[in-house]
Amino acid sequence: MKNVAILGASGLVGQTLLRLLEERNFPVGKLRILATARSAGQTVTFRGQELVIEEATPDAFAGVDIAFFAASNEASRELAPEAVRRGAVVIDKSSYWRMHPEVPLAVPEVNPDAIRQHRGIIASPNCSTIQLVLPLKALHDAAGLRRVVVSTYQAVSGTGKEAVEELRRQAPRVLAGEDPEPQVYPRPIAFNVLPHCDSFQENGYTREEMKLTLETRKILGLPDLPIAATAVRVPVFTGHSEAVLVETEEKLTAAQAREVLARMPGVVVVDDPAALAYPDPLMAAGRDEVFVGRIREDLSSPTGLWLWVVSDNLRKGAATNAIQIAEFLIREGLR
Amino acid sequence: MKNVAILGASGLVGQTLLRLLEERNFPVGKLRILATARSAGQTVTFRGQELVIEEATPDAFAGVDIAFFAASNEASRELAPEAVRRGAVVIDKSSYWRMHPEVPLAVPEVNPDAIRQHRGIIASPNCSTIQLVLPLKALHDAAGLRRVVVSTYQAVSGTGKEAVEELRRQAPRVLAGEDPEPQVYPRPIAFNVLPHCDSFQENGYTREEMKLTLETRKILGLPDLPIAATAVRVPVFTGHSEAVLVETEEKLTAAQAREVLARMPGVVVVDDPAALAYPDPLMAAGRDEVFVGRIREDLSSPTGLWLWVVSDNLRKGAATNAIQIAEFLIREGLR
Repeated sequence: MKNVAILGASGLVGQTLLRLLEERNFPVGKLRILATARSAGQTVTFRGQELVIEEATPDAFAGVDIAFFAASNEASRELAPEAVRRGAVVIDKSSYWRMHPEVPLAVPEVNPDAIRQHRGIIASPNCSTIQLVLPLKALHDAAGLRRVVVSTYQAVSGTGKEAVEELRRQAPRVLAGEDPEPQVYPRPIAFNVLPHCDSFQENGYTREEMKLTLETRKILGLPDLPIAATAVRVPVFTGHSEAVLVETEEKLTAAQAREVLARMPGVVVVDDPAALAYPDPLMAAGRDEVFVGRIREDLSSPTGLWLWVVSDNLRKGAATNAIQIAEFLIREGLR
Repeated sequence: MKNVAILGASGLVGQTLLRLLEERNFPVGKLRILATARSAGQTVTFRGQELVIEEATPDAFAGVDIAFFAASNEASRELAPEAVRRGAVVIDKSSYWRMHPEVPLAVPEVNPDAIRQHRGIIASPNCSTIQLVLPLKALHDAAGLRRVVVSTYQAVSGTGKEAVEELRRQAPRVLAGEDPEPQVYPRPIAFNVLPHCDSFQENGYTREEMKLTLETRKILGLPDLPIAATAVRVPVFTGHSEAVLVETEEKLTAAQAREVLARMPGVVVVDDPAALAYPDPLMAAGRDEVFVGRIREDLSSPTGLWLWVVSDNLRKGAATNAIQIAEFLIREGLR
């Protein structure tokens, strides 16, 4: 049994983490639920028991084997080294440590070796990146990646609880002809799409688009991989979708790509257009796999393949991946 | 004054056509509203008057100068030649005649010469194609097109009235936890996205994706242009969006592309990320222009540019373009 801490258990990812620790029968010894002073004293439920949220001080990590961080970048910056100093392995869902050269950025099906080399902190990638690198890894091993172009269709739960509430509140208002009163997003998200996820950078890309680009390169170990993205928020509650154009060094037919992808752990191919079988966010929500469909040869390049990639952004895109990292550590005797 | 006929006036495009003929003070002499026998006898309103829908027989086009077709492919196939035989010019919104080698496929800002060469039928392109070719034409003239990659975010009004009703009906049902009961689309569209517009073809692409590919080549007069698309339906009522990656022969900076696009008739550049200025379907609905933003240099190719292109699919994507073709004919003395 492992002593586990969760920092940020009241958020959507934290809640999903708690549910998954139950679902997967994770060998939880003592469980500490931590948060900033503001949330301390509230309670969460785990295996039928009420647990009181404690304040996340450095000493709160004493005796903890595995600490899941699902809070702010600031909390990860300050508390992750403190937790490691006290003997914990930190699995961090924030973006703070992801690009640090000494911190592995890990998706267990894709780069397990990175996990083995950890020095205390292991970063879990951005949601839109995780679901992308599984099919990319399969295609890279089969035919070599040459270039990747991605357009995303991202659910509001990626932003957090308040965005889910906003979509829920706005939809009936729009239908009734009332002002949707945007608060979380700068424009209405109900019955609208916004080409704007996270903040804009100097180069015209958003942080989300740059995360997808830079994290994918790091995870795949391809620092020069040509890759670019447009990230778009859509009025979906849970489940990110991606239209992906992949160019490979060697030609794969659609049928070959389908076989290669079907063999990739964590990937489920749903691709039978004649039977109207393709992934959508509604069917992916609540599932732990990455679903791939619409596999077809590109009409604009000799070795291009199009994929439609869908996954639950709170599960494989966040909590499931973090727990899989912890399970890997335990299985390998690293914790 | 011109005698005008509208076939299919009770549909969304037909209704928008009627509104635009009023708005733009189109020189309407006699107006005949035509439909299949099924709708004959119903009425529509034009300039405050009730007009009875007549049955669209071949002889109904006698004396008509300009006939707007906004009905089925079958009606266009059967009736367009009959209307032309009786002296009308047919501006056809169906897809039936678009790829016919003797029929011009026209966007007035892009290929007006094609209109001049008409033999009676002029086809208006697919909605997702029209908004794409305006910025592509500007970039082609400035730097030469090498390749185009598109992912679409398409509104339900592109499918028709019954799809608008479906989204309206499904949204409250999903929020209440009830079965959304899909009818028009094979899956729920409320709070979901579907990588499926129009029917699937043998090659794995949908008809919508192939229209976008083939029509763009024809309009731009670039029969070998490498271009491919993924077309996705999103829960938006009106306004199609497109994430477009354009590679040009010569390098354009983002600033140069912004200037080139701002000079293109029919295009409005909305692109100031620092001020959160970018197009979205909600702001484009009810407008006649094509809005372009998120203009930035591609990170995956030396001469690539990303654009985010949004337009009202019922207006510039359909009715506005058809009326602009008619206005061009009149202005040039061709009718």
